[in-house]
Amino acid sequence: MADRCIIISGGEEEKIGDTAGAYVIGCDKGCLYAEKQGIPLDLCVGDFDSYRGPMPEGARVICLPLEKDDTDTLYAVKRALADGFRKITVRCAFGGRLDHTVANLETLVYAAERGAVAEATGNGEFAIAFGPQAGIFRIPRREGYSLSVFAGCGEAREVTIKGTKYEIECETLSGSFPLGVSNEWTADEATVWVNYGTVLIVSSKKEF
Amino acid sequence: MADRCIIISGGEEEKIGDTAGAYVIGCDKGCLYAEKQGIPLDLCVGDFDSYRGPMPEGARVICLPLEKDDTDTLYAVKRALADGFRKITVRCAFGGRLDHTVANLETLVYAAERGAVAEATGNGEFAIAFGPQAGIFRIPRREGYSLSVFAGCGEAREVTIKGTKYEIECETLSGSFPLGVSNEWTADEATVWVNYGTVLIVSSKKEF
Repeated sequence: MADRCIIISGGEEEKIGDTAGAYVIGCDKGCLYAEKQGIPLDLCVGDFDSYRGPMPEGARVICLPLEKDDTDTLYAVKRALADGFRKITVRCAFGGRLDHTVANLETLVYAAERGAVAEATGNGEFAIAFGPQAGIFRIPRREGYSLSVFAGCGEAREVTIKGTKYEIECETLSGSFPLGVSNEWTADEATVWVNYGTVLIVSSKKEF
Repeated sequence: MADRCIIISGGEEEKIGDTAGAYVIGCDKGCLYAEKQGIPLDLCVGDFDSYRGPMPEGARVICLPLEKDDTDTLYAVKRALADGFRKITVRCAFGGRLDHTVANLETLVYAAERGAVAEATGNGEFAIAFGPQAGIFRIPRREGYSLSVFAGCGEAREVTIKGTKYEIECETLSGSFPLGVSNEWTADEATVWVNYGTVLIVSSKKEF
C-alpha cells in the first residue's frame, strides 16, 4: 500500500510533479489540473462547482453535495486519515481566495492533530503542520525562503527551534501572537519540535 | 481624539482611501505607500528593512531593531491598543508573502482578544476579527464576495451566524476545523456574534 497521500486542491495550478507510489486524490478543480498534467487519480471528490468537464478515467468519483459542512479538501484529508495515511501532501493549495487559503492551512492542522504530517504547496509557498508524534522534525534549508513557525490551533507549548537565526527552547507559541515570523536557516537544516499542540510552518520566498 | 487607528502595512499596495479623522500609522514599506498616495502619517514604525527612502514630514518615527520578536504591524497594533483605540484598520495587509498574511491575520485576532474590532484589507480581500464585546456584529452584504467565519485562536464558542445561506446558532468553531467556509449573504446584512473567544471573518471575491 502507498504510504503517502497526495491531494490536488483547487487553488492556483502548479506543477504537481512525481506522484509515483502515492495514493492521489483530486478535489474539484484539482481533477482538471491532474488531467491536464497527465497525473492518474485514484479518487476524485468534490461538489464539482468549479469543474464540469469529464471525470478522469479509472478513478473512483465521489460527488459531495453542494451544501456541505466540509470543504472538498478537508473531506479528502478525512478520507486519507481514515485510510491510514499519515503523510499527506496537498498541492495547488494556495494562490486563490484568502478564505480557501486559511481553510487549507486549518485543514493541515486538522490532520496534524490526528497524528499526520501534512504539508501543502502552491503559488511558490510551502506549509507543513505536525504535532509531538513527528519527534524532532528536520526541515532542509531552502535558499531565499523564510521559515515562519506558528501555533497550529490555539497554543503550541514547549516548542523548540534550532538551526535558525532566532532559536527558541521550550517556549509557547499562540495563534494570536505571531512570534516566529520571518525566521531563517543558519544551518543546512532547521529542527523543530513541539511537545503539546501542533505547529504550522510557513516558508515564503523573501522579497529583495 | 481620533476614535479609529489606520495602520498601513507592507503587503501589496492598494488605494488607502479616506483617513480623515483617524490616527494613521505607517509600517515600514507602508510609509512609502502613504507618501506616494499623499496620506499624512502620525507615526511611522519599522525596522525599515524594505524601505530606505526619506521619512515622511511631520510624522514621529520609531525605528525598531532589525532583530525583534514582533512584526512591524503587530508593534503598530500594540501601540494603537496602548493609546486606547478599539477600532483598528490595517490596509495593504495581504497579497504579499503567505507568512506575512498569516501573521497579519493573527495580529487581528491579537487585537480582538484585547477588546478591539480589527479589520484588514488588501489584494481585494477583507478580514475582520472581534470578540464578545462587539455584541451582535453586522456585516453589510458585499455582492460577489464570500463570507467565511473561522475561530480566531483555538476555539470560538457559542457562535451564531444569521442572514446567510448556512446559519448556525450557538455552535463551536475550531482553528483546526474549517466549518464556516464559503458562506454567503442572503440578507442585506449578516449578523455574527460570539460569546467565548474570537472569530475571524474572511470575505473573498468569488471565482466564476
